[in-house]
Amino acid sequence: MSAAYDPNNVFAKLLRGEMPAHKVYETDKVLAFMDIMPRADGHVLVIPKAAARNILDIHPDDLAELAKAVQFVAKGVKKAMAADGLTIQQFNESAGGQVVFHIHVHVLPRWEGVALRPHTGAMENGEVLAKHAGTIRAALEAMQAGG
Amino acid sequence: MSAAYDPNNVFAKLLRGEMPAHKVYETDKVLAFMDIMPRADGHVLVIPKAAARNILDIHPDDLAELAKAVQFVAKGVKKAMAADGLTIQQFNESAGGQVVFHIHVHVLPRWEGVALRPHTGAMENGEVLAKHAGTIRAALEAMQAGG
Repeated sequence: MSAAYDPNNVFAKLLRGEMPAHKVYETDKVLAFMDIMPRADGHVLVIPKAAARNILDIHPDDLAELAKAVQFVAKGVKKAMAADGLTIQQFNESAGGQVVFHIHVHVLPRWEGVALRPHTGAMENGEVLAKHAGTIRAALEAMQAGG
Repeated sequence: MSAAYDPNNVFAKLLRGEMPAHKVYETDKVLAFMDIMPRADGHVLVIPKAAARNILDIHPDDLAELAKAVQFVAKGVKKAMAADGLTIQQFNESAGGQVVFHIHVHVLPRWEGVALRPHTGAMENGEVLAKHAGTIRAALEAMQAGG
């Protein structure tokens, strides 16, 4: 068994509005926002609103909704960031690379010849995050409007 | 737009039975089998039977089914390989790390203090793959039987 869900993890706080975030997409089921330690410009995280630690305990239906949201967000990120491709990552438990224990999916825009940046733990400038968030949000809104 | 689906990619051939695979799980919608160039012992790939190049063109319902299968397989891989965690990866287009152009999800068992092996392109010994496949298949069959 995996450990129990901790309702005080930072993404739970973010969902409760107790932490700020550069949001790019939100439904009644999911939230997408900028990773504050991006490994690529335009690095977005997609999370379910349902409480789940990781892939080991999330309800399959919530995971299915999350996957559909990841696809929608990935298309918007690719368009907004003029990316050539996308790398999707999802980490489970510390050994699997997980740091925040509310399930989240990394959506990383990729460009030919550009490696992912190392995970240094350094926070990105807030203005840079806000700019990328605005571009991605606009692309997703255009997609929702059928654009 | 992404490029068109190539029906002669190796996973399409595998689905048609024109290539061998160490299968661990199969439904009418998905197939899971051992990666022949594993970055960790027990490295499994999960693919939909539906033709799709990657996350940019797969039907959302097929992606949802794939995600549920990934979860089921991940639990079995963790149990079978006595893993501490799991890393899930999914690559889109060459820039995103994709090599075979039929959408596939990497399920990588992880253990504390054990890094992923580099992607050398070297093929694993068939007997090793068969052994891991057998262990994982047994775990998944026990799960399906409610064990």
